[in-house]
Amino acid sequence: METDNGLQRNAPIGVFDSGVGGLTVFREIMRQIPNEKIIYFGDTARVPYGSKSRETVTRYSEQIVRFLRTFHVKTIVVACNTASACALDTLEQDIDIPIIGVVKPGARAAVDVTKNGRIGVIGTEATIGSQIYTEYISKLNRNVTIYGRACPLFVPLVEEGLLEDPVTDEIARRYLAELIDIDIDTLLLGCTHYPLIRSTLSRIVGDRVTLVNPAYETALELKNMLREMDLLNEDPPGLGANQYRFYVSDKADKFVRFANSIIKYGILSAKAVNIEEY
Amino acid sequence: METDNGLQRNAPIGVFDSGVGGLTVFREIMRQIPNEKIIYFGDTARVPYGSKSRETVTRYSEQIVRFLRTFHVKTIVVACNTASACALDTLEQDIDIPIIGVVKPGARAAVDVTKNGRIGVIGTEATIGSQIYTEYISKLNRNVTIYGRACPLFVPLVEEGLLEDPVTDEIARRYLAELIDIDIDTLLLGCTHYPLIRSTLSRIVGDRVTLVNPAYETALELKNMLREMDLLNEDPPGLGANQYRFYVSDKADKFVRFANSIIKYGILSAKAVNIEEY
Repeated sequence: METDNGLQRNAPIGVFDSGVGGLTVFREIMRQIPNEKIIYFGDTARVPYGSKSRETVTRYSEQIVRFLRTFHVKTIVVACNTASACALDTLEQDIDIPIIGVVKPGARAAVDVTKNGRIGVIGTEATIGSQIYTEYISKLNRNVTIYGRACPLFVPLVEEGLLEDPVTDEIARRYLAELIDIDIDTLLLGCTHYPLIRSTLSRIVGDRVTLVNPAYETALELKNMLREMDLLNEDPPGLGANQYRFYVSDKADKFVRFANSIIKYGILSAKAVNIEEY
Repeated sequence: METDNGLQRNAPIGVFDSGVGGLTVFREIMRQIPNEKIIYFGDTARVPYGSKSRETVTRYSEQIVRFLRTFHVKTIVVACNTASACALDTLEQDIDIPIIGVVKPGARAAVDVTKNGRIGVIGTEATIGSQIYTEYISKLNRNVTIYGRACPLFVPLVEEGLLEDPVTDEIARRYLAELIDIDIDTLLLGCTHYPLIRSTLSRIVGDRVTLVNPAYETALELKNMLREMDLLNEDPPGLGANQYRFYVSDKADKFVRFANSIIKYGILSAKAVNIEEY
């Protein structure tokens, strides 16, 4: 089962996020490459990342990578825009297995979609402040203009379950007003929580704006990369093989409840670990 | 300067919170005992505490106490309702200097204020879930009924600066509706962020409900305790003595900006430390 690069095809994929948001990426990976085993880690003890500094988010991400490597994962997906924006470069330098984030796939998709060359990017304070989407998109196409907007209240509103609610509508109207005014035709959902309020966002920006969810593109990039490296798992894991395993740094029960509300799979349990020890 | 208990009168007081909210307690201590030196720590790298478990909040609080003790503080104030609710009992067991939280002083004040024996308590998920206010208040007066309500969106709304805003009004109306219906006459602000939206809360519950802010009572209890232990600092610290020092676990600049918006004192700087090392 070992390939030329020393990695095992049937080894699991590691996926991590600051909390539950990355489950929207997990969900896409499940759909697109259903034979893979996945270890998911949500940093629920230190969530949210979006209001924190690059240094802190990088330190947290490094601990999680060390934790995931204890499972001999064949690749790691940074399923968190903030961690991808702040930490991916550093993580890549220190690691000998492939690691991909959600920012590059999202940027590519947005460039493919836009017709009028005006792309709006929404995300956490840290992601928007990092200017990383602007950087990537400009590299892909110099003629595109990117408008970034931090939306700090979306994550707490989602976590409070106000997915369809007049308050979420009102906050979304404020955050998006400027982007609508400058006539964007593409809105990049630069935070893994945002697909959960997709219908609200879509209603407010209107039909002429296409929403881009990097989760789909990330799963696709992962699949292509694994295929190129001859690392795709050929057979589905057998019964009892524990195909999907969930770890969190706090409140495993709450995580399981939330996870089951957005994923049909039926997550039975998650295990809490002290991530500061890694 | 050393007293019978081996503590120095001119030693600083340690004050900590999950972030900026505890500054409302710091502010009261400044006012009521202006001769004291204070070391403030805000855990901005791991904020918020309110959605986390008792075990995690206790572990974080223990690290902070170890950090504060490096300054040879004469006492510690847990200026965070969640940490007081989850961790104070454990902290008290392991420490040989006096330590006080905000919960007991707040509970006493609410019992003194109520006339009809119906007290509403609002706070984070963790504080309300801990039932600690109910416990303390019932011990003080068996005839009082306590109605707890978690208000998870208040902290993000305050941190987003929406102190006077229709959205904050709407969320407050929802959170407080039941408490108004059951005719409370006292509303205990069981989270240090809430005094910052005091006028919104006051408007929504109406004139007949008295708001209790534990910050004031906590500073008073601290003053009385220090006096009884002969630990009050008699003279104001000299010029250049660095009377107030601020430490955070992340984003010192943002902390200073927020702090200056709520405290008149003029906080010039805060220092970031890696709290996980303690």
